[in-house]
Amino acid sequence: MSGLDPADLTAKLVRCASVTPANDGALEILQSVLEAAGFDCAWADRGGIRNLFARWGSKGNQRCFGFNGHTDVVPVGDEAAWTMPPFGAEIRDGVMYGRGTTDMKSGVAAFVAAAVDYVKNTPPDGAIVIAITGDEEGESVDGTTALLDYMAENGERMDVCLVGEPTCPENMGDMIKIGRRGSMNAHFRVVGKQGHSAYPHRANNPLNAMVRLMDRLASHELDQGTAHFDASTLAVVTVDTGNAATNVIPAACTAAVNIRFNDTHSGASLSAWLEEEAAKVRKAFGVEVSLKIKISGESFITPPGALSDLVSRAVEAETGVTPQLSTTGGTSDARFVKAHCPVVEFGLVGQSMHQVDEHVRVEHIHQLKAIYGRILKDYFA
Amino acid sequence: MSGLDPADLTAKLVRCASVTPANDGALEILQSVLEAAGFDCAWADRGGIRNLFARWGSKGNQRCFGFNGHTDVVPVGDEAAWTMPPFGAEIRDGVMYGRGTTDMKSGVAAFVAAAVDYVKNTPPDGAIVIAITGDEEGESVDGTTALLDYMAENGERMDVCLVGEPTCPENMGDMIKIGRRGSMNAHFRVVGKQGHSAYPHRANNPLNAMVRLMDRLASHELDQGTAHFDASTLAVVTVDTGNAATNVIPAACTAAVNIRFNDTHSGASLSAWLEEEAAKVRKAFGVEVSLKIKISGESFITPPGALSDLVSRAVEAETGVTPQLSTTGGTSDARFVKAHCPVVEFGLVGQSMHQVDEHVRVEHIHQLKAIYGRILKDYFA
Repeated sequence: MSGLDPADLTAKLVRCASVTPANDGALEILQSVLEAAGFDCAWADRGGIRNLFARWGSKGNQRCFGFNGHTDVVPVGDEAAWTMPPFGAEIRDGVMYGRGTTDMKSGVAAFVAAAVDYVKNTPPDGAIVIAITGDEEGESVDGTTALLDYMAENGERMDVCLVGEPTCPENMGDMIKIGRRGSMNAHFRVVGKQGHSAYPHRANNPLNAMVRLMDRLASHELDQGTAHFDASTLAVVTVDTGNAATNVIPAACTAAVNIRFNDTHSGASLSAWLEEEAAKVRKAFGVEVSLKIKISGESFITPPGALSDLVSRAVEAETGVTPQLSTTGGTSDARFVKAHCPVVEFGLVGQSMHQVDEHVRVEHIHQLKAIYGRILKDYFA
Repeated sequence: MSGLDPADLTAKLVRCASVTPANDGALEILQSVLEAAGFDCAWADRGGIRNLFARWGSKGNQRCFGFNGHTDVVPVGDEAAWTMPPFGAEIRDGVMYGRGTTDMKSGVAAFVAAAVDYVKNTPPDGAIVIAITGDEEGESVDGTTALLDYMAENGERMDVCLVGEPTCPENMGDMIKIGRRGSMNAHFRVVGKQGHSAYPHRANNPLNAMVRLMDRLASHELDQGTAHFDASTLAVVTVDTGNAATNVIPAACTAAVNIRFNDTHSGASLSAWLEEEAAKVRKAFGVEVSLKIKISGESFITPPGALSDLVSRAVEAETGVTPQLSTTGGTSDARFVKAHCPVVEFGLVGQSMHQVDEHVRVEHIHQLKAIYGRILKDYFA
């Protein structure tokens, strides 16, 4: 191992308690390392969120490789359940523990270390852009979008972009993500007529309509998957009434569903379907049904090609594993980058992300740096 | 109008916030009025519930007319939805508003006023027993049963009993209840496997099973009614999850149903049916389904006869309406009294009971007092 130590840099980042929207000095650590290596750094802060933009090389029309990631982390949850300090970055038996060790301070540190070494050893004929946000785990309103807005306003660009999220389900190198399903939430409220449980015909129980509606939604097959996508899914995540009195038929109840959808659908087509289903129970049960929909992201894909080939080759060379090209899983900031240039995602094994005792094997951080370094070398070759 | 004003007494009771198990001074108001009229009062408190026993005349073998009622009320619900203060007893256009104005502080006040006037004007050759509980709307474990236990332990008895619950569906005088359907509650808990909303196949959503089960129960026709009984009913009263995170499939959810059943069924036969339905979704969805059943009362009847004739004649004389003898509606404490003596129920129009802006026409409280007074007069004639 030579050059900048990515595990040491990861540990420094983990020791910042950067739970969204806090930054706690994390991005300044990166700024310091990148500026020392000749990167120009600028802040694209917005809405109380700190966002770091860094470029090595001049802006202009030469080849430019982009990297996107985040230093914010999800909350610790039940701290008493952790066996290691969540912001300690303590290492035991070759494993580093702490919030963000997997998602994704190690990914950011590995790329920054790879890029710093690369530009020092073999300055490329081109540019490298690193755009790191502090708002990926939260609303994502003032994070990567703020960085992309900053770039557009300042004549900055990328030809391709790698997002360093943990992408591997089981083993290092086993998955690259080339797109993501879309995601949306729908919040339902059904209002009927309150009354005494003994006289249901004088009331109009909103729960009868709600359970019918939720059963219809949960039972419906949205599709069977497409060439690059798994089948779309709908999860009823909550149904609530809050009625403690068994002799009272409640006036209202609420529910929420989350839909992850492929390119068979759009947020608009699914919204129309949900409205139709709501209208059916509204008519059948004579209740009021209101519906608030929030589309977090449409589905997107960077079809297999030059960029995924580049990343696949580097992964295979460093790990011996042939990565699967996938569109599974939750949403990520690649959905914003996609509007600007081809984007793929590759990073660590994500199993412990968002969990108690989140951790990473230290050797995997070094391996990830080697993969990222090889991607840069091959890209500019 | 002469004698004790039953509307004034109702208002005083309504101003006590006696949501079960609270009493808030309600029964002490009655105690004071009854003792002033020569009733012997005693407390039959149990399990933190206040219960008032009152007798005019000596205990022994003479004719004894009993009255049973309650001063506790159901919760206010969404207080913001009320247009009048729920414990204000405010009168507008001859209508008094507030929780308990119908169910059943007015019924208690009307009987107490009738009895006080009656014993004062024409002291009967017999006794009058008034047993008022503070636990009818709740679990009913330490309410009328505590009063009946007190009576048994203290050599107190009744020959007949009138329960003053609101019994009229549309117009004053249109219904006397001679029995009731049975009532039971079932509390369901479904446990599946928690997971990320993006990977429903790795989780097992308990809500899918719960909404199917509740839809099946709510859609099922239990029967079509019998000679003295309406059709049995089932109301899903609550479904709850409490999951605020739309990206998480919950581990568990709960629900409760209330069943009112006629003599086609028993608590045991319905319990077996619920267990069967639970087993079906347990098998179909691979979830755990647990079920806690509480049978509040089996169905019962006091067949038409001397007592129902007495009440019917008084109602007809005061209102001109011939009351229907019915077994419809919710359970009441008559189910406990039934084991001790013949019991019928007669009271106000119940339309607004348990609802927002519960109310009563003030003239109906006076009319009810007149009916109760006539029943006493005819009984002791």
